[in-house]
Amino acid sequence: MNAALPLSELHASLSDPALSAMNFLNEVVERYPDAISFAPGRPSEGEFRATDVSRYLEVYTSYLAEQEGFSPERIAAELFQYGRTNGQIHRLIARTVANDEGIAVDPDNVVVTVGAQEGMLLVLRALFGSPEDVLLVSSPCYVGITGVARLLDIETVAVPEGTDGMELAELERISAEIRARGKRPRALYLVPDFANPTGASLPTAARLRLLEVAAAAELLVIEDNPYGFFRRVGEARPTLKALDSDHRVIYIGSFAKTCMPGARVGYVLADQPVSGAHGRRTTLAQELSKIKSMVTVNTSAVSQAVIGGMLIANGCRLRDSNADAAKLYTQNLQLLLDLLADRFEGRADIAWNRPDGGFFVVLTVPFTADDAALERSAREHRVLWTPMNYFHRDGAGSHGIRLSCSAVTPEEIRAGVGRLAAFVAAEESRAAS
Amino acid sequence: MNAALPLSELHASLSDPALSAMNFLNEVVERYPDAISFAPGRPSEGEFRATDVSRYLEVYTSYLAEQEGFSPERIAAELFQYGRTNGQIHRLIARTVANDEGIAVDPDNVVVTVGAQEGMLLVLRALFGSPEDVLLVSSPCYVGITGVARLLDIETVAVPEGTDGMELAELERISAEIRARGKRPRALYLVPDFANPTGASLPTAARLRLLEVAAAAELLVIEDNPYGFFRRVGEARPTLKALDSDHRVIYIGSFAKTCMPGARVGYVLADQPVSGAHGRRTTLAQELSKIKSMVTVNTSAVSQAVIGGMLIANGCRLRDSNADAAKLYTQNLQLLLDLLADRFEGRADIAWNRPDGGFFVVLTVPFTADDAALERSAREHRVLWTPMNYFHRDGAGSHGIRLSCSAVTPEEIRAGVGRLAAFVAAEESRAAS
Repeated sequence: MNAALPLSELHASLSDPALSAMNFLNEVVERYPDAISFAPGRPSEGEFRATDVSRYLEVYTSYLAEQEGFSPERIAAELFQYGRTNGQIHRLIARTVANDEGIAVDPDNVVVTVGAQEGMLLVLRALFGSPEDVLLVSSPCYVGITGVARLLDIETVAVPEGTDGMELAELERISAEIRARGKRPRALYLVPDFANPTGASLPTAARLRLLEVAAAAELLVIEDNPYGFFRRVGEARPTLKALDSDHRVIYIGSFAKTCMPGARVGYVLADQPVSGAHGRRTTLAQELSKIKSMVTVNTSAVSQAVIGGMLIANGCRLRDSNADAAKLYTQNLQLLLDLLADRFEGRADIAWNRPDGGFFVVLTVPFTADDAALERSAREHRVLWTPMNYFHRDGAGSHGIRLSCSAVTPEEIRAGVGRLAAFVAAEESRAAS
Repeated sequence: MNAALPLSELHASLSDPALSAMNFLNEVVERYPDAISFAPGRPSEGEFRATDVSRYLEVYTSYLAEQEGFSPERIAAELFQYGRTNGQIHRLIARTVANDEGIAVDPDNVVVTVGAQEGMLLVLRALFGSPEDVLLVSSPCYVGITGVARLLDIETVAVPEGTDGMELAELERISAEIRARGKRPRALYLVPDFANPTGASLPTAARLRLLEVAAAAELLVIEDNPYGFFRRVGEARPTLKALDSDHRVIYIGSFAKTCMPGARVGYVLADQPVSGAHGRRTTLAQELSKIKSMVTVNTSAVSQAVIGGMLIANGCRLRDSNADAAKLYTQNLQLLLDLLADRFEGRADIAWNRPDGGFFVVLTVPFTADDAALERSAREHRVLWTPMNYFHRDGAGSHGIRLSCSAVTPEEIRAGVGRLAAFVAAEESRAAS
């Protein structure tokens, strides 16, 4: 074939603007390494050193020897060989979510995944059996979930998210509308705490109400909770899974922000009973393992050992071990909000939200904040951010800028907001000329 | 929902007998831990120790410091953070396939994957854009590829494999037949060396001919090569990718058998040019990265570091570093073949093949070798194997037994073949009574 493969003959997801958008962002970040970046949602490395990896491995293997009574040969095989499809550190994870979130889950219903991302793929693939099934997503929404839906040709419908998280009256209305056109609202995806990209959170009363609405609409709920520990103001709220009394909620957890993203370990809590032919009963976790065996076979034993070691070293209490990180993120968020107020307070045409925690703030500006504007911001002002339209499926968000404060120092935030103000001024004179 | 989720409303792949079959096999293996197992295709652990993981990590980080000039902070970030979607050890992999297979590939066209399994998922998702596209697979076939096809609702058509690998006249005929019914034969999946489950290999002349047939039929070729180093007799043959002059072959590589499966690292060589809108040119590797970002984000940095350390420690020459392992596997294979001859030679109703290498032998028996027979074999004779019908899509293979010789000692092979003979005799008297 000296001829090239036409992109149009490859799967449609590859022509999706959302997937290309993220590539553009990564390119810009690489092209301007000296820019101050409010773009990536990655965690701070803190005091992490390369030798910590071996240290955590050692904690894990000592645990296997001392607590589980494994022989040196068995420990070597545990690291070297193919492993249990649903993972090796499921008991440690069950203990951790019990300690941190008050979630009671049988370890057999924990699926260890290659990051939360693989968890999303497994869950969507399992649940969506018919072209009639529709996934409801918050809008704006994390691109990881809409991207997976695109890969699997699953229809998504957006449910608007306000300052207090998902709008439940809209959720009810949209679910009914989907049913009225002969389709089935199968599941709802949301991040109830400090959502990406909006930073919005759902009040506790609204969480209970959401579960009622979901039950009435026969919707399963996919709860994704990467940022829950990083609260700036107010009291911790219960996860939907902790409030769930009838196996409605599938919980997706991540160690990327609370341990380390490089290990690529996340998990799914999937305790839903499944009824098969001849009265056979399984759980959703067992069904997910069939899919996982065809996606990644099992999560890296080496990665699981490192994360397992981190869990053990911290007594299976990540909320406590993340206290310093939480302080850093919330101080950064507070500083960013203070500086935005210094620069823009009183401007009727510039607005921003004040999330209770998490990594993200959304700034609304009086000009189009698209790829071209980002390119100018990078080139002329050496400051990077993420266009909000990446997170919308309908072209909305054209005047929004997502600012992430997790991977910048206070000095960078100070300098960065200055550059951002210069960029905003330049865009305004540009529009005026 | 106190009611359970009906399996029939989940994705159809979850009701697929092939996926349940593998679960049954794993269950049996777990239930009879004292049985001699010819079932799993896993590699030998050799002299591997848990501390080797840290040693290889150290080799890799020293390489980053000394050869790449990375600072300690940058090395820590390399392990800790999210990384490049297509991986960090792509240059080392390109060097290794050049040394071991004479394959010349630009490192930018290497995609580091979570095992070969994720590679299959990425490749099938990218290539299959329309319900008209059909995947051709060898028959019998590795369940990993047919399983992925099932997950993605891709139609597969079987092409028979004989002693000398895929039957090329059948490949031509079946491709034409698919086109005649208005569908498109999009790609062909095969393992040219010591295939799983048959152990069959394609002669060199047939490899060249296969590429011609594929070109004429406008088929892309997906070559999977996990066992190539483990040759018992004859000379090494060129991979299809090494013979490929027009970007027809997508090569899937695995470190599971040549380094360690627990790291879950594999790779795809995807140098196919892709033409997009507005004359934009990319390669298939770049398109695969868009999909990978929605499946696993990137392959574990910790796992990549361990495999990277193994590659560096062995001068990027795995064929050489696997010489001892190859000797072990081929001696095991030879012993198994010799013992089968001792037991069954002269029996007209029992047959087996004599693969040139790899992990697998197929024994054909005069009774149905199904799950029930496997259960009896495990319970009454303490010997495990894999029913060949797991590898067929059409109910064929009912009298076949796959014997794997990679994870057993010579003593186990001797005792195991004795038990197998007792099991065969018991099944025969059972059929006679």
